[in-house]
Amino acid sequence: MTRAHSAVNVDIALAESLFEQLDRATRRGRGIVRDSYGDGEQAGHDIVRSAAEGIGLGISIDAIGNLTMTLPGKDRRAPRILIGSHLDSVPQGGNFDGAAGVIAGVCALSALRSAGFVPDYDIAVMAIRAEESSWFDVSYLGSEGAFGLLDPACLSVRRSDNGRTLEETLVARGFDPTAIAQRRRLIEPRQVRAYLELHIEQGPRLMAEGLPAAVVSGIRGCKRFRNARCVGEYGHSGALPRALRHDAVAATVAFLHHMEGVWNRVEGEGADLLVTHGELYTDRAAHAPSKVSGETRFVIDLRSLSMQVMDAVAAEARRAAEEIGRQYRVTFELGAATDSPPAMMDPRLRSSLLGLLDRPLEMPSGAGHDAAVFAELGIPAAMIFVRNDYGSHNPDEAMALEDFAVGTQALIEMLRQFPL
Amino acid sequence: MTRAHSAVNVDIALAESLFEQLDRATRRGRGIVRDSYGDGEQAGHDIVRSAAEGIGLGISIDAIGNLTMTLPGKDRRAPRILIGSHLDSVPQGGNFDGAAGVIAGVCALSALRSAGFVPDYDIAVMAIRAEESSWFDVSYLGSEGAFGLLDPACLSVRRSDNGRTLEETLVARGFDPTAIAQRRRLIEPRQVRAYLELHIEQGPRLMAEGLPAAVVSGIRGCKRFRNARCVGEYGHSGALPRALRHDAVAATVAFLHHMEGVWNRVEGEGADLLVTHGELYTDRAAHAPSKVSGETRFVIDLRSLSMQVMDAVAAEARRAAEEIGRQYRVTFELGAATDSPPAMMDPRLRSSLLGLLDRPLEMPSGAGHDAAVFAELGIPAAMIFVRNDYGSHNPDEAMALEDFAVGTQALIEMLRQFPL
Repeated sequence: MTRAHSAVNVDIALAESLFEQLDRATRRGRGIVRDSYGDGEQAGHDIVRSAAEGIGLGISIDAIGNLTMTLPGKDRRAPRILIGSHLDSVPQGGNFDGAAGVIAGVCALSALRSAGFVPDYDIAVMAIRAEESSWFDVSYLGSEGAFGLLDPACLSVRRSDNGRTLEETLVARGFDPTAIAQRRRLIEPRQVRAYLELHIEQGPRLMAEGLPAAVVSGIRGCKRFRNARCVGEYGHSGALPRALRHDAVAATVAFLHHMEGVWNRVEGEGADLLVTHGELYTDRAAHAPSKVSGETRFVIDLRSLSMQVMDAVAAEARRAAEEIGRQYRVTFELGAATDSPPAMMDPRLRSSLLGLLDRPLEMPSGAGHDAAVFAELGIPAAMIFVRNDYGSHNPDEAMALEDFAVGTQALIEMLRQFPL
Repeated sequence: MTRAHSAVNVDIALAESLFEQLDRATRRGRGIVRDSYGDGEQAGHDIVRSAAEGIGLGISIDAIGNLTMTLPGKDRRAPRILIGSHLDSVPQGGNFDGAAGVIAGVCALSALRSAGFVPDYDIAVMAIRAEESSWFDVSYLGSEGAFGLLDPACLSVRRSDNGRTLEETLVARGFDPTAIAQRRRLIEPRQVRAYLELHIEQGPRLMAEGLPAAVVSGIRGCKRFRNARCVGEYGHSGALPRALRHDAVAATVAFLHHMEGVWNRVEGEGADLLVTHGELYTDRAAHAPSKVSGETRFVIDLRSLSMQVMDAVAAEARRAAEEIGRQYRVTFELGAATDSPPAMMDPRLRSSLLGLLDRPLEMPSGAGHDAAVFAELGIPAAMIFVRNDYGSHNPDEAMALEDFAVGTQALIEMLRQFPL
């Protein structure tokens, strides 16, 4: 619940109707399928656009299909506020990841308009295309594309299911791939005063804390050793004394145990860090219960709000891999690391949002969001997380409308308080 | 080299010829294929039998195809000495695993006969059938079958490649499956004075120690948790704080690290122990670089000369799995353990053999051998290991004839010294 100083209330019936329409149009079996630039995502755009037209918002669609729904302000040429999120989903996803943010924006503008509120400058809801990487193996196609940031090579990436290139897909949908090919800017960053995004929490923290919503401090970056290996030598488990082993499993266990110690230490120093090894396996074609293992493969996934912390932990991983490799007479090949840098949310927007929550909590976002693209361009960005059970990217996503209302109410209050 | 007190010398030309004949008859591509009860093993039996007949040894074949080649002694009814090993190989194995022991026996009896040595009682070489479990998924078919120890159910076990049952295979080869069905004893244990087996070392220890041969102290038993699991919960690697994780990989790493500590402690106390986790894997269908892992599967393979040591380590594994499971909010299911008990070699035979080596070394055997079957029946058993490079059960097995001669010479000396 937000503080009771507002007369402008969320139209919860509108939100409920929009979530239901989306569900009906895009549920396939147990889960939701809103394929990026496919029929599922388009159905979402059609539903939201129709609602926005009903409310009387101005509609525009850019060259790559992002839909913008505008509540006009007094000064139409001043930099505007964007409220954004995406309408695509992973295959067999849930109904709330992405869509909740777009619907929150539409409901907020509907409430402001009903209350006769005229903002100083435009406030627009942006239904962003293709945020998920499941379909084209590229994240943020819509938001990066809007800023001319995409590598034109992405036009030849093929959709994971039907094999059509992004270029073919854009053309078939009536959009213009040359905007990407020529890196055209469809939005000028200096024309965006702030970017606000509401999103379901993808972890269980708000469930555990018993809170309906929270403010996002920043979007964690990720440094990942996707293809780490340990190479030893296979041998007979009953015949090989320890001193003659080149045991890839024993060495990997020692290494990963060391990394847990590093995590403990860094966390103890107050830094933000998560360390995960989601894949770890011996070679199915060669391993056996009676063999000392000659190879393991694993992933090191580092997440933090600080690139510096991740760089330091990665350097320590390389050092430890050398040392433990020598101890165990094996070779670690951590391979190249891929980086996606963290994106901090704007401190003034964060503190303003925190002031609008009855029980204020700030937390990092572990997953990436379009907000990161705006923040990296220097646009003040903020995010509201809404409590959600069972995680995201699965058919069981469960967000209560009451919690959605708390987050959306904070969004409305914030819009009324601009300029901060 | 054995001490130079012997005038009876190994016929190394005979050994070389037999190894060459075996190689020619049973090499298929890069490796050796002497399939249990198949054409490959039979080719081995034919070659060895023909050599034994040439030497003038008495030939007999039991109901399940074990071939016995006898140098008659002065008292033909007194308990005899058996020198044994097997002539089958794993698929794409090497030329020496098993065959070296049979050929050593034939060469020893050839040397004794040439020297005019007449033993007090019969000395026989037993070419044992089907020691490897690769073909019928049962070990020791020949030796256990000879003592009526096999479960008759094994007759319906199918060969891994052609699908024929053991019963069909025995009949096709002209042998009598009723011996197994009725658990008939084809050898009376009290009629065996001692069992001696020469075998290539299956580990790298003699290579590392620079020794041609060693005496086996005992055959390690094995206690194995074949299907151990850790069950946690999948979650987002960037969104799940540590306190809310049920991370199967982190818990498994902590558990296996603990087991390495246990191994260190037990070994430090002077006990014989090997601990191996040859298989360790997250679920390929569910794991991902961006997921906290919800499941691991792994093997705990314990080897020791002492059942008591293995029982104690297994009990500690169960206790630690409970405790670490609680710490990490996951559940370990170690499952049932399978036991194959250790078999100690006879102390008097061991010390006699040690006295016959220039540089005496005693070491455990990690792999199982037919000698274990004899030892478990209370028959005094002893084994000689011969240095071998590249391990066994692969086409690269490499035993030098000079090393084979050292082991066989010790065998000859021992036979001349009986009764000890």
